[in-house]
Amino acid sequence: MNKLAIALSLALCACAAPRRSFAPADADLPFSSGVLVGDTYYVAGHLGRDPQTGAIPEDPAAEAGFMLDAFAASLARAGMTMDDLVQVQVFCADVSLYDTFNAAYRRRFSGEFPARAFIGSGQLLRGARFEILGTAVRRH
Amino acid sequence: MNKLAIALSLALCACAAPRRSFAPADADLPFSSGVLVGDTYYVAGHLGRDPQTGAIPEDPAAEAGFMLDAFAASLARAGMTMDDLVQVQVFCADVSLYDTFNAAYRRRFSGEFPARAFIGSGQLLRGARFEILGTAVRRH
Amino acid sequence: MNKLAIALSLALCACAAPRRSFAPADADLPFSSGVLVGDTYYVAGHLGRDPQTGAIPEDPAAEAGFMLDAFAASLARAGMTMDDLVQVQVFCADVSLYDTFNAAYRRRFSGEFPARAFIGSGQLLRGARFEILGTAVRRH
Repeated sequence: MNKLAIALSLALCACAAPRRSFAPADADLPFSSGVLVGDTYYVAGHLGRDPQTGAIPEDPAAEAGFMLDAFAASLARAGMTMDDLVQVQVFCADVSLYDTFNAAYRRRFSGEFPARAFIGSGQLLRGARFEILGTAVRRH
Repeated sequence: MNKLAIALSLALCACAAPRRSFAPADADLPFSSGVLVGDTYYVAGHLGRDPQTGAIPEDPAAEAGFMLDAFAASLARAGMTMDDLVQVQVFCADVSLYDTFNAAYRRRFSGEFPARAFIGSGQLLRGARFEILGTAVRRH
Repeated sequence: MNKLAIALSLALCACAAPRRSFAPADADLPFSSGVLVGDTYYVAGHLGRDPQTGAIPEDPAAEAGFMLDAFAASLARAGMTMDDLVQVQVFCADVSLYDTFNAAYRRRFSGEFPARAFIGSGQLLRGARFEILGTAVRRH
Protein backbone atom coordinates (compact mmCIF):
# COMPACT_ATOMS: atom_id res chain seq x y z
CA MET A 1 0.00 0.00 0.00
CA ASN A 2 2.97 2.33 0.65
CA LYS A 3 4.31 1.36 -2.72
CA LEU A 4 0.94 2.18 -4.18
CA ALA A 5 1.09 5.65 -2.63
CA ILE A 6 4.54 6.23 -4.10
CA ALA A 7 3.53 4.88 -7.49
CA LEU A 8 0.46 7.09 -7.48
CA SER A 9 2.52 10.14 -6.57
CA LEU A 10 4.93 9.40 -9.37
CA ALA A 11 2.14 8.87 -11.83
CA LEU A 12 0.32 12.02 -10.81
CA CYS A 13 3.40 14.16 -10.87
CA ALA A 14 4.61 12.85 -14.20
CA CYS A 15 2.04 14.76 -14.69
CA ALA A 16 -0.58 13.49 -16.93
CA ALA A 17 -1.60 16.94 -18.17
CA PRO A 18 -4.48 16.12 -20.50
CA ARG A 19 -4.56 18.02 -23.82
CA ARG A 20 -7.57 19.28 -25.69
CA SER A 21 -7.72 21.31 -28.89
CA PHE A 22 -10.64 23.56 -29.82
CA ALA A 23 -11.71 24.09 -33.44
CA PRO A 24 -11.41 27.56 -34.97
CA ALA A 25 -14.34 29.55 -36.39
CA ASP A 26 -13.13 28.59 -39.87
CA ALA A 27 -12.52 24.85 -39.62
CA ASP A 28 -10.62 24.77 -42.94
CA LEU A 29 -7.68 26.70 -41.55
CA PRO A 30 -4.66 24.89 -40.08
CA PHE A 31 -4.87 26.02 -36.49
CA SER A 32 -6.86 25.47 -33.33
CA SER A 33 -8.63 28.36 -31.63
CA GLY A 34 -6.88 27.22 -28.49
CA VAL A 35 -5.09 24.27 -26.91
CA LEU A 36 -5.63 23.34 -23.27
CA VAL A 37 -2.88 21.39 -21.50
CA GLY A 38 -3.67 20.77 -17.86
CA ASP A 39 -4.61 24.18 -16.47
CA THR A 40 -2.85 26.22 -19.15
CA TYR A 41 -4.75 27.42 -22.21
CA TYR A 42 -2.81 28.65 -25.23
CA VAL A 43 -5.07 30.94 -27.26
CA ALA A 44 -4.61 31.52 -31.00
CA GLY A 45 -4.52 34.91 -32.67
CA HIS A 46 -8.03 36.30 -33.04
CA LEU A 47 -9.29 39.09 -35.32
CA GLY A 48 -12.30 41.37 -34.90
CA ARG A 49 -14.61 40.19 -37.68
CA ASP A 50 -18.27 41.11 -37.53
CA PRO A 51 -20.01 37.78 -36.81
CA GLN A 52 -22.92 38.82 -39.08
CA THR A 53 -20.88 39.71 -42.17
CA GLY A 54 -17.51 38.06 -41.58
CA ALA A 55 -15.85 41.38 -42.44
CA ILE A 56 -13.67 43.68 -40.36
CA PRO A 57 -15.94 46.62 -39.43
CA GLU A 58 -14.98 50.16 -40.42
CA ASP A 59 -15.18 51.43 -36.86
CA PRO A 60 -12.02 50.43 -34.96
CA ALA A 61 -13.86 50.42 -31.61
CA ALA A 62 -16.36 47.93 -33.05
CA GLU A 63 -13.47 45.86 -34.39
CA ALA A 64 -11.79 45.78 -30.96
CA GLY A 65 -15.10 44.73 -29.40
CA PHE A 66 -15.69 41.89 -31.88
CA MET A 67 -12.12 40.71 -31.41
CA LEU A 68 -12.38 40.64 -27.63
CA ASP A 69 -15.74 38.84 -27.91
CA ALA A 70 -14.15 36.15 -30.09
CA PHE A 71 -11.16 35.87 -27.79
CA ALA A 72 -13.34 35.58 -24.69
CA ALA A 73 -15.48 32.96 -26.47
CA SER A 74 -12.36 30.86 -27.08
CA LEU A 75 -11.48 31.12 -23.39
CA ALA A 76 -15.06 30.20 -22.45
CA ARG A 77 -14.85 26.98 -24.49
CA ALA A 78 -11.97 25.98 -22.20
CA GLY A 79 -14.02 26.96 -19.14
CA MET A 80 -12.09 30.18 -18.53
CA THR A 81 -12.61 33.94 -18.60
CA MET A 82 -10.43 36.94 -19.42
CA ASP A 83 -9.50 37.03 -15.72
CA ASP A 84 -7.60 33.76 -16.15
CA LEU A 85 -5.22 35.32 -18.70
CA VAL A 86 -1.61 35.69 -17.61
CA GLN A 87 -0.02 37.05 -20.79
CA VAL A 88 -1.49 38.81 -23.81
CA GLN A 89 -0.02 40.14 -27.04
CA VAL A 90 -1.89 42.71 -29.07
CA PHE A 91 -0.70 43.49 -32.58
CA CYS A 92 -1.94 46.72 -34.05
CA ALA A 93 -1.46 48.06 -37.56
CA ASP A 94 -2.08 51.64 -36.38
CA VAL A 95 -0.76 52.44 -32.89
CA SER A 96 -2.70 55.71 -32.84
CA LEU A 97 -5.61 53.41 -31.87
CA TYR A 98 -3.99 52.60 -28.52
CA ASP A 99 -6.57 54.50 -26.42
CA THR A 100 -9.47 53.09 -28.47
CA PHE A 101 -8.19 49.61 -27.82
CA ASN A 102 -7.54 50.17 -24.12
CA ALA A 103 -11.07 51.46 -23.53
CA ALA A 104 -12.57 48.28 -24.99
CA TYR A 105 -10.01 46.03 -23.28
CA ARG A 106 -10.25 47.46 -19.79
CA ARG A 107 -13.96 46.68 -19.50
CA ARG A 108 -13.33 42.94 -19.94
CA PHE A 109 -11.56 42.40 -16.64
CA SER A 110 -12.93 42.35 -13.13
CA GLY A 111 -9.62 42.37 -11.24
CA GLU A 112 -5.92 42.61 -11.98
CA PHE A 113 -4.78 42.70 -15.59
CA PRO A 114 -2.52 40.14 -17.26
CA ALA A 115 0.95 41.05 -18.49
CA ARG A 116 0.55 42.52 -21.98
CA ALA A 117 2.55 43.77 -24.93
CA PHE A 118 0.99 46.17 -27.44
CA ILE A 119 3.04 46.01 -30.62
CA GLY A 120 2.84 48.00 -33.81
CA SER A 121 2.61 45.44 -36.60
CA GLY A 122 2.74 45.50 -40.37
CA GLN A 123 -0.34 44.81 -42.46
CA LEU A 124 -2.59 42.22 -40.77
CA LEU A 125 -4.76 39.57 -42.44
CA ARG A 126 -8.12 40.74 -43.87
CA GLY A 127 -7.16 44.37 -43.34
CA ALA A 128 -7.55 43.99 -39.58
CA ARG A 129 -6.23 46.76 -37.34
CA PHE A 130 -5.91 44.46 -34.31
CA GLU A 131 -4.94 40.89 -33.53
CA ILE A 132 -4.81 39.40 -30.03
CA LEU A 133 -3.32 36.18 -28.66
CA GLY A 134 -2.50 35.00 -25.18
CA THR A 135 -1.99 32.42 -22.49
CA ALA A 136 -4.33 31.71 -19.58
CA VAL A 137 -3.85 29.64 -16.44
CA ARG A 138 -6.98 28.52 -14.67
CA ARG A 139 -7.47 30.08 -11.24
CA HIS A 140 -8.34 27.58 -8.49
CA MET B 1 7.80 4.60 5.05
CA ASN B 2 4.67 6.74 4.94
CA LYS B 3 6.84 9.75 5.63
CA LEU B 4 9.01 8.70 2.74
CA ALA B 5 5.96 8.66 0.46
CA ILE B 6 4.99 12.15 1.57
CA ALA B 7 8.52 13.48 1.23
CA LEU B 8 8.77 11.95 -2.22
CA SER B 9 5.50 13.53 -3.26
CA LEU B 10 6.64 16.91 -2.03
CA ALA B 11 9.98 16.61 -3.76
CA LEU B 12 8.42 15.47 -7.01
CA CYS B 13 5.79 18.17 -7.03
CA ALA B 14 8.15 20.99 -6.10
CA CYS B 15 8.80 20.06 -9.13
CA ALA B 16 12.35 19.70 -10.10
CA ALA B 17 11.75 20.56 -13.75
CA PRO B 18 15.20 20.05 -15.29
CA ARG B 19 16.31 22.69 -17.81
CA ARG B 20 18.31 22.19 -20.97
CA SER B 21 19.33 24.72 -23.60
CA PHE B 22 20.09 23.83 -27.21
CA ALA B 23 22.67 25.73 -29.23
CA PRO B 24 21.55 27.72 -32.30
CA ALA B 25 22.81 27.10 -35.84
CA ASP B 26 25.05 30.16 -35.46
CA ALA B 27 26.71 29.64 -32.08
CA ASP B 28 27.98 33.25 -31.97
CA LEU B 29 24.51 34.70 -31.55
CA PRO B 30 23.09 35.36 -28.06
CA PHE B 31 20.18 32.95 -28.03
CA SER B 32 19.42 29.27 -27.74
CA SER B 33 17.54 27.44 -30.48
CA GLY B 34 15.25 26.24 -27.71
CA VAL B 35 15.03 25.75 -23.97
CA LEU B 36 13.45 22.66 -22.45
CA VAL B 37 12.03 22.92 -18.93
CA GLY B 38 10.42 19.69 -17.80
CA ASP B 39 8.01 18.79 -20.59
CA THR B 40 7.73 22.28 -22.05
CA TYR B 41 9.98 23.34 -24.92
CA TYR B 42 10.29 27.04 -25.75
CA VAL B 43 11.44 27.36 -29.35
CA ALA B 44 13.32 30.41 -30.66
CA GLY B 45 12.43 32.33 -33.79
CA HIS B 46 13.60 30.46 -36.88
CA LEU B 47 14.15 31.76 -40.43
CA GLY B 48 14.06 29.88 -43.72
CA ARG B 49 17.69 29.99 -44.80
CA ASP B 50 18.87 27.56 -47.44
CA PRO B 51 21.18 25.18 -45.52
CA GLN B 52 23.50 24.97 -48.56
CA THR B 53 24.01 28.70 -49.08
CA GLY B 54 22.90 30.28 -45.80
CA ALA B 55 20.74 32.70 -47.80
CA ILE B 56 16.99 33.21 -47.86
CA PRO B 57 15.82 31.60 -51.14
CA GLU B 58 13.97 33.66 -53.72
CA ASP B 59 11.02 31.31 -53.80
CA PRO B 60 8.77 31.95 -50.78
CA ALA B 61 7.51 28.35 -50.77
CA ALA B 62 11.11 27.13 -50.53
CA GLU B 63 11.74 29.64 -47.75
CA ALA B 64 8.71 28.38 -45.79
CA GLY B 65 9.92 24.80 -46.26
CA PHE B 66 13.46 25.54 -45.05
CA MET B 67 12.05 27.43 -42.08
CA LEU B 68 9.76 24.60 -41.07
CA ASP B 69 12.62 22.12 -41.50
CA ALA B 70 14.81 24.18 -39.15
CA PHE B 71 11.97 24.57 -36.66
CA ALA B 72 11.19 20.84 -36.70
CA ALA B 73 14.92 20.10 -36.27
CA SER B 74 14.97 22.22 -33.11
CA LEU B 75 11.98 20.31 -31.78
CA ALA B 76 13.67 17.01 -32.67
CA ARG B 77 16.73 17.92 -30.60
CA ALA B 78 14.37 18.09 -27.61
CA GLY B 79 12.83 14.76 -28.60
CA MET B 80 9.65 16.29 -29.95
CA THR B 81 7.79 16.77 -33.23
CA MET B 82 5.52 19.44 -34.70
CA ASP B 83 2.59 17.52 -33.19
CA ASP B 84 3.80 18.45 -29.70
CA LEU B 85 3.40 22.18 -30.41
CA VAL B 86 0.68 23.98 -28.48
CA GLN B 87 1.20 27.57 -29.65
CA VAL B 88 2.90 29.02 -32.70
CA GLN B 89 3.51 32.56 -33.92
CA VAL B 90 4.32 33.22 -37.55
CA PHE B 91 5.56 36.65 -38.55
CA CYS B 92 5.30 37.48 -42.20
CA ALA B 93 6.60 40.53 -44.03
CA ASP B 94 4.08 40.00 -46.86
CA VAL B 95 0.70 38.64 -45.78
CA SER B 96 -0.25 37.94 -49.40
CA LEU B 97 1.88 34.82 -48.83
CA TYR B 98 -0.67 33.41 -46.35
CA ASP B 99 -1.83 30.57 -48.61
CA THR B 100 1.73 29.71 -49.64
CA PHE B 101 2.67 29.42 -46.00
CA ASN B 102 -0.40 27.43 -45.03
CA ALA B 103 0.23 24.85 -47.76
CA ALA B 104 3.74 24.20 -46.45
CA TYR B 105 2.64 24.30 -42.80
CA ARG B 106 -0.34 21.98 -43.06
CA ARG B 107 1.77 19.09 -44.33
CA ARG B 108 3.87 19.06 -41.16
CA PHE B 109 1.13 17.86 -38.81
CA SER B 110 -0.44 14.45 -38.49
CA GLY B 111 -3.32 15.41 -36.19
CA GLU B 112 -4.82 18.51 -34.61
CA PHE B 113 -3.08 21.83 -35.15
CA PRO B 114 -1.64 24.02 -32.40
CA ALA B 115 -3.08 27.45 -31.62
CA ARG B 116 -1.45 29.91 -34.02
CA ALA B 117 -1.21 33.59 -34.81
CA PHE B 118 -0.16 34.78 -38.29
CA ILE B 119 0.98 38.36 -37.99
CA GLY B 120 2.04 40.84 -40.60
CA SER B 121 5.45 42.14 -39.50
CA GLY B 122 7.81 44.86 -40.59
CA GLN B 123 11.10 44.04 -42.30
CA LEU B 124 12.57 40.80 -40.94
CA LEU B 125 16.25 39.94 -40.47
CA ARG B 126 18.20 38.89 -43.59
CA GLY B 127 15.30 39.91 -45.82
CA ALA B 128 13.25 36.93 -44.64
CA ARG B 129 9.56 36.84 -45.46
CA PHE B 130 8.72 34.49 -42.59
CA GLU B 131 9.78 33.87 -39.01
CA ILE B 132 8.29 31.21 -36.75
CA LEU B 133 8.49 30.62 -32.99
CA GLY B 134 6.47 28.52 -30.60
CA THR B 135 5.94 26.46 -27.49
CA ALA B 136 5.60 22.67 -27.34
CA VAL B 137 4.49 20.40 -24.52
CA ARG B 138 5.51 16.77 -24.76
CA ARG B 139 2.63 14.36 -25.27
CA HIS B 140 2.71 11.35 -22.93
CA MET C 1 -1.97 7.39 6.97
CA ASN C 2 -1.55 5.85 3.53
CA LYS C 3 -4.71 7.62 2.52
CA LEU C 4 -3.23 10.83 3.85
CA ALA C 5 -0.17 10.34 1.66
CA ILE C 6 -2.36 9.80 -1.38
CA ALA C 7 -4.59 12.76 -0.55
CA LEU C 8 -1.54 14.96 -0.07
CA SER C 9 -0.09 13.86 -3.38
CA LEU C 10 -3.32 14.65 -5.13
CA ALA C 11 -3.60 18.04 -3.46
CA LEU C 12 -0.01 18.94 -4.24
CA CYS C 13 -0.25 17.89 -7.83
CA ALA C 14 -3.53 19.66 -8.44
CA CYS C 15 -1.23 21.95 -8.08
CA ALA C 16 -2.22 25.06 -6.29
CA ALA C 17 0.14 27.34 -8.20
CA PRO C 18 -0.21 30.69 -6.42
CA ARG C 19 -0.61 33.76 -8.67
CA ARG C 20 0.75 37.23 -8.13
CA SER C 21 0.51 40.29 -10.37
CA PHE C 22 3.00 43.15 -10.29
CA ALA C 23 1.97 46.73 -11.01
CA PRO C 24 3.39 48.50 -14.08
CA ALA C 25 5.41 51.72 -13.95
CA ASP C 26 2.31 53.59 -15.10
CA ALA C 27 -0.42 52.28 -12.81
CA ASP C 28 -3.19 53.83 -14.97
CA LEU C 29 -2.59 51.43 -17.84
CA PRO C 30 -4.53 48.16 -18.11
CA PHE C 31 -1.74 45.65 -17.73
CA SER C 32 0.57 44.17 -15.13
CA SER C 33 4.33 44.42 -15.49
CA GLY C 34 4.36 40.67 -14.94
CA VAL C 35 2.29 37.80 -13.58
CA LEU C 36 3.85 35.03 -11.52
CA VAL C 37 2.09 31.65 -11.44
CA GLY C 38 3.99 29.10 -9.42
CA ASP C 39 7.54 29.21 -10.79
CA THR C 40 6.65 30.76 -14.14
CA TYR C 41 6.79 34.52 -14.62
CA TYR C 42 5.06 36.07 -17.64
CA VAL C 43 6.67 39.43 -18.35
CA ALA C 44 4.85 42.25 -20.14
CA GLY C 45 6.24 44.21 -23.06
CA HIS C 46 8.74 46.81 -21.84
CA LEU C 47 10.05 49.91 -23.63
CA GLY C 48 13.33 51.78 -23.13
CA ARG C 49 12.17 55.05 -21.60
CA ASP C 50 14.71 57.22 -19.81
CA PRO C 51 13.66 56.97 -16.13
CA GLN C 52 14.63 60.65 -15.61
CA THR C 53 12.58 62.11 -18.47
CA GLY C 54 10.10 59.38 -19.35
CA ALA C 55 11.07 59.78 -23.01
CA ILE C 56 12.67 57.35 -25.44
CA PRO C 57 16.31 58.51 -25.73
CA GLU C 58 17.75 59.49 -29.12
CA ASP C 59 20.62 57.03 -28.83
CA PRO C 60 19.39 53.50 -29.65
CA ALA C 61 22.07 51.90 -27.47
CA ALA C 62 20.82 53.95 -24.51
CA GLU C 63 17.25 52.95 -25.35
CA ALA C 64 18.20 49.26 -25.40
CA GLY C 65 19.95 49.69 -22.05
CA PHE C 66 16.97 51.41 -20.40
CA MET C 67 14.65 48.77 -21.77
CA LEU C 68 16.74 45.90 -20.45
CA ASP C 69 17.02 47.66 -17.08
CA ALA C 70 13.22 47.94 -16.87
CA PHE C 71 12.77 44.34 -17.97
CA ALA C 72 15.32 43.06 -15.42
CA ALA C 73 13.63 45.18 -12.72
CA SER C 74 10.33 43.44 -13.47
CA LEU C 75 12.03 40.06 -13.16
CA ALA C 76 13.66 41.17 -9.89
CA ARG C 77 10.26 42.03 -8.38
CA ALA C 78 9.38 38.35 -8.90
CA GLY C 79 12.70 37.29 -7.37
CA MET C 80 14.28 36.35 -10.68
CA THR C 81 17.07 37.46 -12.99
CA MET C 82 17.63 37.49 -16.75
CA ASP C 83 19.18 34.03 -16.34
CA ASP C 84 15.76 32.62 -15.42
CA LEU C 85 14.31 33.60 -18.82
CA VAL C 86 13.37 30.75 -21.11
CA GLN C 87 11.81 32.64 -24.04
CA VAL C 88 12.15 36.25 -25.19
CA GLN C 89 10.61 38.23 -28.02
CA VAL C 90 12.21 41.46 -29.17
CA PHE C 91 10.28 43.71 -31.53
CA CYS C 92 12.34 46.26 -33.39
CA ALA C 93 11.14 49.04 -35.66
CA ASP C 94 14.55 49.18 -37.41
CA VAL C 95 16.29 45.83 -37.82
CA SER C 96 19.53 47.56 -38.82
CA LEU C 97 19.89 47.99 -35.02
CA TYR C 98 20.33 44.23 -34.54
CA ASP C 99 24.01 44.44 -33.57
CA THR C 100 23.41 47.42 -31.29
CA PHE C 101 20.72 45.47 -29.50
CA ASN C 102 22.75 42.27 -29.26
CA ALA C 103 25.70 44.09 -27.67
CA ALA C 104 23.48 45.45 -24.90
CA TYR C 105 21.59 42.17 -24.51
CA ARG C 106 24.55 39.83 -24.33
CA ARG C 107 26.00 41.56 -21.28
CA ARG C 108 22.90 40.80 -19.21
CA PHE C 109 23.41 37.04 -19.02
CA SER C 110 25.92 35.03 -17.06
CA GLY C 111 25.28 31.65 -18.70
CA GLU C 112 23.23 30.16 -21.49
CA PHE C 113 20.82 32.39 -23.35
CA PRO C 114 17.05 31.91 -23.54
CA ALA C 115 15.31 31.08 -26.79
CA ARG C 116 14.66 34.37 -28.58
CA ALA C 117 12.96 35.84 -31.60
CA PHE C 118 14.02 39.21 -33.00
CA ILE C 119 11.21 40.53 -35.16
CA GLY C 120 10.98 43.59 -37.33
CA SER C 121 7.83 45.42 -36.23
CA GLY C 122 5.81 48.36 -37.45
CA GLN C 123 5.76 51.64 -35.55
CA LEU C 124 5.98 51.06 -31.79
CA LEU C 125 4.34 53.09 -29.00
CA ARG C 126 6.04 56.39 -28.04
CA GLY C 127 8.34 56.15 -31.04
CA ALA C 128 10.29 53.32 -29.43
CA ARG C 129 12.72 51.34 -31.58
CA PHE C 130 12.60 48.27 -29.30
CA GLU C 131 10.08 46.38 -27.21
CA ILE C 132 10.86 43.21 -25.23
CA LEU C 133 8.65 40.62 -23.57
CA GLY C 134 9.29 37.14 -22.25
CA THR C 135 8.69 34.18 -20.00
CA ALA C 136 10.92 33.07 -17.13
CA VAL C 137 10.93 29.88 -15.09
CA ARG C 138 12.67 30.01 -11.74
CA ARG C 139 15.80 27.89 -11.51
CA HIS C 140 15.96 25.69 -8.39
